[in-house]
Amino acid sequence: MSLSTREHGGKQVRIEDGFWNGYTKLVRETVIPYQWDALNDKIPGAEPSFAIRNFRIASGLEEGEFGGLVFQDSDLAKWLEAVGYSLASHPDAELERIADDVIELIAKAQHENGYLNTYFTIKEPDKAWTNLHEAHELYCAGHMMEAAVAYYEATGKRKLLDVMCKFADHIDSVFGREAGKLRGYDGHQEIELALVKLHRVTGEERYLKLAQFFIDERGQQPNFFVEECKRRGGYNHWAKKELPIPTVEQLSYNQAHKPVREQETAIGHSVRAVYMYTAMADLARLTGDKELLAACRRLWDNTTKKQMYITGGIGSTHHGEAFTFDYDLPNDTVYAETCASIGLIFFARRMLQIEAKSEYADVLERALYNNVIGSMSLDGKRYFYVNPLEVWPKASEKNPGRHHVKAVRQKWFGCSCCPPNVARLLSSLNDYIYTAAAEDNTVYAHLFIGSEAKFDLAAGQVSLKQESRLPWEGYARFELTGVPGGAFSLALRIPSWCRGKAAMMINGSPAEYDAVDGYAVATRAWAQGDVVEWRPELAAELIAARPDIRANAGKAAIQRGPLVYCLEETDNGSPMASLSIVRTAKLDSRFDEGLCGGAVVIEADGCADDRASWPEDASYRPLAEEKAAEPVRLKAVPYYLWGNREEGEMTVWIRTAAQ
Amino acid sequence: MSLSTREHGGKQVRIEDGFWNGYTKLVRETVIPYQWDALNDKIPGAEPSFAIRNFRIASGLEEGEFGGLVFQDSDLAKWLEAVGYSLASHPDAELERIADDVIELIAKAQHENGYLNTYFTIKEPDKAWTNLHEAHELYCAGHMMEAAVAYYEATGKRKLLDVMCKFADHIDSVFGREAGKLRGYDGHQEIELALVKLHRVTGEERYLKLAQFFIDERGQQPNFFVEECKRRGGYNHWAKKELPIPTVEQLSYNQAHKPVREQETAIGHSVRAVYMYTAMADLARLTGDKELLAACRRLWDNTTKKQMYITGGIGSTHHGEAFTFDYDLPNDTVYAETCASIGLIFFARRMLQIEAKSEYADVLERALYNNVIGSMSLDGKRYFYVNPLEVWPKASEKNPGRHHVKAVRQKWFGCSCCPPNVARLLSSLNDYIYTAAAEDNTVYAHLFIGSEAKFDLAAGQVSLKQESRLPWEGYARFELTGVPGGAFSLALRIPSWCRGKAAMMINGSPAEYDAVDGYAVATRAWAQGDVVEWRPELAAELIAARPDIRANAGKAAIQRGPLVYCLEETDNGSPMASLSIVRTAKLDSRFDEGLCGGAVVIEADGCADDRASWPEDASYRPLAEEKAAEPVRLKAVPYYLWGNREEGEMTVWIRTAAQ
Repeated sequence: MSLSTREHGGKQVRIEDGFWNGYTKLVRETVIPYQWDALNDKIPGAEPSFAIRNFRIASGLEEGEFGGLVFQDSDLAKWLEAVGYSLASHPDAELERIADDVIELIAKAQHENGYLNTYFTIKEPDKAWTNLHEAHELYCAGHMMEAAVAYYEATGKRKLLDVMCKFADHIDSVFGREAGKLRGYDGHQEIELALVKLHRVTGEERYLKLAQFFIDERGQQPNFFVEECKRRGGYNHWAKKELPIPTVEQLSYNQAHKPVREQETAIGHSVRAVYMYTAMADLARLTGDKELLAACRRLWDNTTKKQMYITGGIGSTHHGEAFTFDYDLPNDTVYAETCASIGLIFFARRMLQIEAKSEYADVLERALYNNVIGSMSLDGKRYFYVNPLEVWPKASEKNPGRHHVKAVRQKWFGCSCCPPNVARLLSSLNDYIYTAAAEDNTVYAHLFIGSEAKFDLAAGQVSLKQESRLPWEGYARFELTGVPGGAFSLALRIPSWCRGKAAMMINGSPAEYDAVDGYAVATRAWAQGDVVEWRPELAAELIAARPDIRANAGKAAIQRGPLVYCLEETDNGSPMASLSIVRTAKLDSRFDEGLCGGAVVIEADGCADDRASWPEDASYRPLAEEKAAEPVRLKAVPYYLWGNREEGEMTVWIRTAAQ
Repeated sequence: MSLSTREHGGKQVRIEDGFWNGYTKLVRETVIPYQWDALNDKIPGAEPSFAIRNFRIASGLEEGEFGGLVFQDSDLAKWLEAVGYSLASHPDAELERIADDVIELIAKAQHENGYLNTYFTIKEPDKAWTNLHEAHELYCAGHMMEAAVAYYEATGKRKLLDVMCKFADHIDSVFGREAGKLRGYDGHQEIELALVKLHRVTGEERYLKLAQFFIDERGQQPNFFVEECKRRGGYNHWAKKELPIPTVEQLSYNQAHKPVREQETAIGHSVRAVYMYTAMADLARLTGDKELLAACRRLWDNTTKKQMYITGGIGSTHHGEAFTFDYDLPNDTVYAETCASIGLIFFARRMLQIEAKSEYADVLERALYNNVIGSMSLDGKRYFYVNPLEVWPKASEKNPGRHHVKAVRQKWFGCSCCPPNVARLLSSLNDYIYTAAAEDNTVYAHLFIGSEAKFDLAAGQVSLKQESRLPWEGYARFELTGVPGGAFSLALRIPSWCRGKAAMMINGSPAEYDAVDGYAVATRAWAQGDVVEWRPELAAELIAARPDIRANAGKAAIQRGPLVYCLEETDNGSPMASLSIVRTAKLDSRFDEGLCGGAVVIEADGCADDRASWPEDASYRPLAEEKAAEPVRLKAVPYYLWGNREEGEMTVWIRTAAQ
């Protein structure tokens, strides 16, 4: 519908919200310090990160071997990016000092020519750019560029930005279509979206062109990864030996099996996929490339309408942490990696910058309130990589096909992509609430999160204050604290979970609005102090999955507003599969102060299959011998809170019973 | 209840049965010749076996490299064993000539000291007995011993028997508790049960003692596999490199984590487990070892009552082709290997030799009529390794966690344990129908398969002729064609699937019987020509699984007599998960001449979830928007016939609907 001119919101939107303050505070006060300790190998009982140590060794400050995985640098980068966002909204001199010090360290590890990567510096100094497919050099570079941009925008300090521009210039000298340059691209997409950010803050066109080059080259024939593999003699970094050259199926893991514009369905490693889609959307917006935009829409549709869990999780298999195919969404052998949902949120945000359609924000909200915050323990110290919709702890332990599904959140992982990704998302959440279409004089509110914000429209500057009772109540209040002279529009998202009325009141009186692409648009010459109240109807309801999703046949999920609910063993007993919910059950919601700091719980009538009459030694018997199911009262809690009490079974999808 | 003196039935029972003649003929006329071609690498498009070629190379008749897996010899052994059984019931001069020739070849490959194994002879001549854990030497020896016994019993020819006795003597000189001997055992159990057979035909006590030694040593401390691994410097045959010494969990794969008498639950690789249980039952019977018998009963109970699929399949995960834990029986990621069900049948048969309890025969029948014969295509040329209870072909293709579940039977496999195992079981099926307790003057009929049989009881010789209408009708007729002077008992199994009456008629008049441990026992001084008719009520019924089996919650399976049924896409459409069966549905059975050579199909009322009203682009919507399910007519076919028509979805467990 419109292109947004809003490019950076960091300092223009400040969150002040009953639900989210807790999270932003947790990230600031616990997650960032905890992860700093982790990066410094100071968490007792957790696998060491080696991240800081690698930089010290690469800088010559310490002797030793490289530790961790080939992309270990990116953990520090993501932490630093989170620090940037955090400092933007909450200045903290001590944290800034720590960050400045570590930036000095990073700068020391940079080579004269701009190259920066501790793995190759320490371990294989003569092998730089010889294994793009597997070795994550451009990926790490991208994350450090994102950190540089965030830190520069927060503090105005250019040190890291200059380091990364120098590295970007070096990369630009190595990659390209010109003779003597490498016509290649990264094995794990990330640098494309990072170069777009670097272009934004520096205005340097070369960075945008380089991003476009990487996107355009991807999947072209002859295939770069195949040729590169031949040049390496087939040596595989992970297997530590020679392997056959990659097949088309293997190339699809990296979305390099065909040019990106020709890709029809989401395929391969899901984090790589959504990071790439994010950059594609950035480029489509900035270059007006219609073909690329069509690919973005097609891949958005496939991802979110055919391959997404109700929690906003993506990735149906742990083999390659990957998409499988349409409607294959097993709840128990699921992957639904935290990072993938975060990448989906990035993608959604970029699509919202292109066109304000509520479906993007609906998915963004779904992934945020369920898969993403559910990945972190209430204390911010433990994380799920995999976010299952059904857990049987004993199977996680004893059935190897489910070992990847953990019943309990884990401490900082050896491959710790998810925790710092959560930190950088939550600390920049202020950037996801609104977009402003300056030319169209429209402010869009995508998320209902209490906040103060300023926007520059063609008509002039608008400032507003949002108060929200979400996710517990369907109510948000917008007060215009500063208005320009002329008219402008306020566009409030009509959430997909709103089944009934979405009522707007302006200054206490019911107001009409135009519903445009899922937004309630009210246009007028607003006066300072005007108040818009927004009441999208929020009620608990049972959700069905389409029959093609085999895993959910005969089942329903409980959803209330943006929150998906689940049953936990601690409230409902075991085996969870013996429970069903009455199809026509009234869903009783009540706020439970005692549940994990307070949350709305939902109770409903259900049935429990007959267990008592089963003899100990029978697995099977005639159905006719079954006694009627017993009525029980089911208690559901928000999915994002699961696994914060006793370990036990959990399920999102519940069998339905006629009565 | 009683120990059977019946030790070999080969020539004493001859099958003549409407249902099974087709299978025994198929094995004789198609499977054995086809597998002979496979062993000789003559099946176009199939992976070469190398089995015969390996023997030629090992004998010095041909130059070349060893081909196939380390246990490739066992394929030839199993084929030869099947040939033995086949020749016993159907003499065939040409087949016998081929077998004699190949036995000559085998004999040529034997070393002077008795050692026989083509892998080690060709590839690692100095490494014999250095890797019991992984290299299958004793396993291959065991299979060749079984072949030798079968061939000797069929033909009276001692050549292979002598070869294998010489090898057994050599093994006996290598293994044992005496100083200088290896205190070890096989990584894949098999030789134990084979030595019992060798003892039976030769009367050589040393062979029985050697079997007992292997069983008794297993899992003792210090652990042999751990010590052996250390001696090998950790070198792993499969990984082709050094690996850490095995953990207790890894030892449980081979059931070597603790002494067999202390094992409480079925664990590890399921074929290894049931082959071992079979030998344990043999030894318990022959030695009167009560502790061993208690272990057999305990492991039987755990296997069949807590870890068995309704089809008689065992093994819940393809990781290690293994058991997982009680009630973990996923239908879609299942393993249920054909060989494991065959091993379970061996175990059941041995338990029946110890005590005539119908539960052993119930399981034997279940595995035979469902998992085992279902593994083979109607033409005998294609096989399932994995026998799933739920198949979504697209998931088998595109979800790596289900790649092991094939939607279509495969040609002879590279690791081709299953096809020759099916052949040797079906060609010796006559050996599974009866046992005779000579001292107790009782003939037990465990299976209702048309046959002529002779038994030697204390009272004298009995001969009888069974006619059966199973599996389609609950009717069998026994005519006593030869009787001794005194009284004896006929004990007919009361099948677990018989819910109502099991009526016995003797010479046309209703007869009373004693029900003892699941057998209808009629004792009298029988006259020649007496006819016993047996009508265990056979009706289609819905079966429920206990709630602990999460995968089957809210579902039912259709069973009719010994046959489990399934729904196939070709009859019922897709997605199969959208179908449910009415809990109280009348199950209409009719014989369908046109279905795969004729079979009873079952039709019943069901429902299909609303699909038409789903928009193309939605995965989820409020349950309240769902339209009522449509009534449909479901058509179920016997599970053993699945996958013989168009490729498509299949399910055994069907959701139940109230209406």
